Amino acid sequence: MGIHIGVDLGGTNVRAAVVLENGTVERLLQEKTEPEQGAEFTIQKIIHMVENLAEGRTIEGIGIGAPGPLDPHRGVILNPPNLPGWDEVAIVDQIKAHFSVDVQLTNDANVAALAEARYGNGRGFSSVFYITVSTGVGGGLVLDGKVFNGAQGYAGEIGNMILNPNGYHYSNLNKGSLESYASGTAIGKRAYELYGIKGGSEEVFDRLKNGDEQAQRVVDDAIEYLAMGIANLTHILNPEVFVIGGGVMNAGDLVWVPLKERIKKYLYPELVPMMNLKPSALSGDAGVIGASLLTRK
Amino acid sequence: MGIHIGVDLGGTNVRAAVVLENGTVERLLQEKTEPEQGAEFTIQKIIHMVENLAEGRTIEGIGIGAPGPLDPHRGVILNPPNLPGWDEVAIVDQIKAHFSVDVQLTNDANVAALAEARYGNGRGFSSVFYITVSTGVGGGLVLDGKVFNGAQGYAGEIGNMILNPNGYHYSNLNKGSLESYASGTAIGKRAYELYGIKGGSEEVFDRLKNGDEQAQRVVDDAIEYLAMGIANLTHILNPEVFVIGGGVMNAGDLVWVPLKERIKKYLYPELVPMMNLKPSALSGDAGVIGASLLTRK
Repeated sequence: MGIHIGVDLGGTNVRAAVVLENGTVERLLQEKTEPEQGAEFTIQKIIHMVENLAEGRTIEGIGIGAPGPLDPHRGVILNPPNLPGWDEVAIVDQIKAHFSVDVQLTNDANVAALAEARYGNGRGFSSVFYITVSTGVGGGLVLDGKVFNGAQGYAGEIGNMILNPNGYHYSNLNKGSLESYASGTAIGKRAYELYGIKGGSEEVFDRLKNGDEQAQRVVDDAIEYLAMGIANLTHILNPEVFVIGGGVMNAGDLVWVPLKERIKKYLYPELVPMMNLKPSALSGDAGVIGASLLTRK
Repeated sequence: MGIHIGVDLGGTNVRAAVVLENGTVERLLQEKTEPEQGAEFTIQKIIHMVENLAEGRTIEGIGIGAPGPLDPHRGVILNPPNLPGWDEVAIVDQIKAHFSVDVQLTNDANVAALAEARYGNGRGFSSVFYITVSTGVGGGLVLDGKVFNGAQGYAGEIGNMILNPNGYHYSNLNKGSLESYASGTAIGKRAYELYGIKGGSEEVFDRLKNGDEQAQRVVDDAIEYLAMGIANLTHILNPEVFVIGGGVMNAGDLVWVPLKERIKKYLYPELVPMMNLKPSALSGDAGVIGASLLTRK
């Protein structure tokens, strides 16, 4: 029995770890991604990190979580905004060519979803919808312990869900999309547009804690749309549990209490008592832990 | 090897059939549902139909498709608008008590989804999202040949998907829901409100065929929202194929051509060439055929 390695490739840092079967991180390395040096550079860095972690032990598999869009079936990173300059990078083939072991790729939200489903607050449920409300809004569906990627790997791209065709426009997403209302970036943008608040979502949440009414209005609006998005997902998929993480959710009761309250008015009444929303349980290690699961049978 | 029977319980008619393994209907009976006589009355009617169909042969299983809301896990019909007066009807237990065979229940859209996935235009795909645009808008997700019901059986209730929080309100659904824009009922209502057209969606589609501009505007709006709904489902689930049926889709190219065109602007550009929408292939028999599959292993 060899080791399983999880790689969490982000726009800023790349982390790789040996993760044990019980979900414990045995050993972790972190380096700067430096995506501007090109994909080849970063991939060589990942190869060195994996060799270093293995210390001569047999590697059973290497799982990689990376920013989308990507194609999990072909193992190719397409052209993610968070890895500027990368275009059609066949990362799986390249790493496989070096190690000759099973290598799998999926997007970062799916990897976190998998970690939460196996070791976090989605544990014990057969259908888990994970949502991250952070810089962007992403999601991942885990059914019976497996990530559901969809035909081209776009399952879980809930940030692009249209909730208001006359609503805000934001980056390359649909007008009035969930991400254009509920993401940290959207909250920061809205606060600036409406009230000249310049410190982004961080300042908004600082003000919110101090009872600032402008911050309250901006966050209220974000929560309202997040509630609609979760109600839509409930009527589409009715998962056993939603696990919700990301920076925005760290505001705790200030976000969670109104969120749970507002979802109710959008659900079929019979579903209201069944509503099952949980915060994410895993720390920043969810990325490497989830990635390591991609190659476990 | 005994026979498999599918029951398609609707608000007006109840149909039951012996369906062969290749999807052929061997023998079919149809009677009036008469839901106002009470659930007991209709269930006795179903029992007689099944006995009549079996003609003494061994019954392997009985699958039932019925209007939602219902609980497929408990086998209970809750309180469907289309079966007025029915409330918490344990139809599975009652039919099982009589025949002592496997009896399964799921909602009518899921049953049609299953039939399309197995014998219709979803054949050969591992993830099929079926949509019916008819009096209402319903859906069903079939993964690897099995209906995905969700935790409480509400998966596929896409008619309640919010697409415009400031939009039309319609029956007990969410304001601005997909059904409130794209259903036949909504089309008929809108045509009456805006232009005094009294003949419902049927008149609207008749007028559309004759190039009537008012009808065109009403249908355009419905198609626009249907396109948004399908784009949302694509970004949430990215199924291999959508199979779309129901009365509204029978308008043919008048609906299909603009629908396919408009979805494009709401999708991630990479997904546009991958778009896979097909009309439903099965006639009115999809209900009994799909229901019969519920008890096939």
